Amino acid sequence: MTVKFEKRVHFYETDEMGVVHHSNYIRWFEIGRVEFLRAVGITLKDLMADGILFPLTEVNAKFLNPSDFDDVLEIKTTATELTKVKMAFDYEISRKSDGKILVTGHSQNVFTNADTGKISRLPDKYYSKLESAKKNLQE
Amino acid sequence: MTVKFEKRVHFYETDEMGVVHHSNYIRWFEIGRVEFLRAVGITLKDLMADGILFPLTEVNAKFLNPSDFDDVLEIKTTATELTKVKMAFDYEISRKSDGKILVTGHSQNVFTNADTGKISRLPDKYYSKLESAKKNLQE
Amino acid sequence: MTVKFEKRVHFYETDEMGVVHHSNYIRWFEIGRVEFLRAVGITLKDLMADGILFPLTEVNAKFLNPSDFDDVLEIKTTATELTKVKMAFDYEISRKSDGKILVTGHSQNVFTNADTGKISRLPDKYYSKLESAKKNLQE
Amino acid sequence: MTVKFEKRVHFYETDEMGVVHHSNYIRWFEIGRVEFLRAVGITLKDLMADGILFPLTEVNAKFLNPSDFDDVLEIKTTATELTKVKMAFDYEISRKSDGKILVTGHSQNVFTNADTGKISRLPDKYYSKLESAKKNLQE
Repeated sequence: MTVKFEKRVHFYETDEMGVVHHSNYIRWFEIGRVEFLRAVGITLKDLMADGILFPLTEVNAKFLNPSDFDDVLEIKTTATELTKVKMAFDYEISRKSDGKILVTGHSQNVFTNADTGKISRLPDKYYSKLESAKKNLQE
Repeated sequence: MTVKFEKRVHFYETDEMGVVHHSNYIRWFEIGRVEFLRAVGITLKDLMADGILFPLTEVNAKFLNPSDFDDVLEIKTTATELTKVKMAFDYEISRKSDGKILVTGHSQNVFTNADTGKISRLPDKYYSKLESAKKNLQE
Repeated sequence: MTVKFEKRVHFYETDEMGVVHHSNYIRWFEIGRVEFLRAVGITLKDLMADGILFPLTEVNAKFLNPSDFDDVLEIKTTATELTKVKMAFDYEISRKSDGKILVTGHSQNVFTNADTGKISRLPDKYYSKLESAKKNLQE
Repeated sequence: MTVKFEKRVHFYETDEMGVVHHSNYIRWFEIGRVEFLRAVGITLKDLMADGILFPLTEVNAKFLNPSDFDDVLEIKTTATELTKVKMAFDYEISRKSDGKILVTGHSQNVFTNADTGKISRLPDKYYSKLESAKKNLQE
């Protein structure tokens, strides 16, 4: 299951090299996983209201081509692992106008209890929603 | 009472015009008021632990000269109003190497209750610390 | 003439007070004026390719209500002054779901020569486009 | 050869989970490599003035422990590869107060020609400075 999200690059996301600052792609990976979860019916707001946090434990990115302000990008997010304690996603960010792949990446999150900070198992009401996405993983 | 803080500009704070993006100065005003409070013995951590938030209600800035990465800046923060319900500060950001004034500004904060979101009066244990700073205002 | 732009708030735009960090609204004002110019047929890319920069000289904002991630905002940008050497805009940022006005603000930009850094007059090919917007100002 | 840099965490670098937003560590890796180069006598300003850019091609990070505003962090940067066409660095970010390691990471940069965007070999006047650092790598 892959979820797509379009994002225009803003001027404040560029740097003095005349391109998008690389740290922004790491931020946009976050948009990707938020939209992935929304697509399966889970919002971060609901998770947080239930005292569940989802800190990132690992991220990596390869920067293949630069982009610039006004570019319209497509963030493609694919789940590679969805369990009750963690999620992993692959990302591909490309430019709509020419289809060029700009950045690829991967991240891992765990679920933690907001009060204790410890890893906690995702309640069934959320996990059941992830399962539909998992089925699509195997296709 | 004026509190000074030095800050080096980092590359990720520049934009494609080849200078510091203006939104960063607004962020650095925040450093200024945090350091002002620290100088009078109040930390934001303590305030937040006591359920007190301090949202900004107003900010303005004049951008007089640009700065660039690697510049070492001085943020000068002066309280102009310190009451139990609000604080106001003037800022002046200059470059250490040539003393040039880059940005001047002003902001207002209120104190609010973290649970209700409503404006709340600052407890005496904090306000007494602001009073020493207030005395210096009148000098 | 007023130009509208919709923007969803992302998680990375929040802060530890549990709301959008105020500096982001200053960044979104920039989106507003970029989209205003695009609406009259001027892109920043074209300006920069012609060696014209547009540094901000002044900004102010009033923060009336907080917003949170996942909120969909509307940035309304109205030109208040458009000459060959400067532009001024009013901004109003509201939340789509309840129409609440979150932030209002104002900014001034000048046009400068990218090489000299000095204020320069906007070439007619751009200024003629601003004039149509100016006519609408007077309505 | 390892270069250390101290950085206080600012409030605007936190997010709604009540900790530093992970994208900031990626930004602070940049501080690390800038300070590494400064320690061997190379500034980014000089490189850029000579038309040399240094885009990131790859970054990865493991997030081991969270940090919060007001924490004073130490960014330790170690070069793992320094050639005429690329640089690679390891990073370790820890908190000064308790020595806890928060984030580890690695990045690769290439040198490119600012005009053509193509990979270019670092001129000897810079490379000779990297060589002293390289000798220390082998120790």
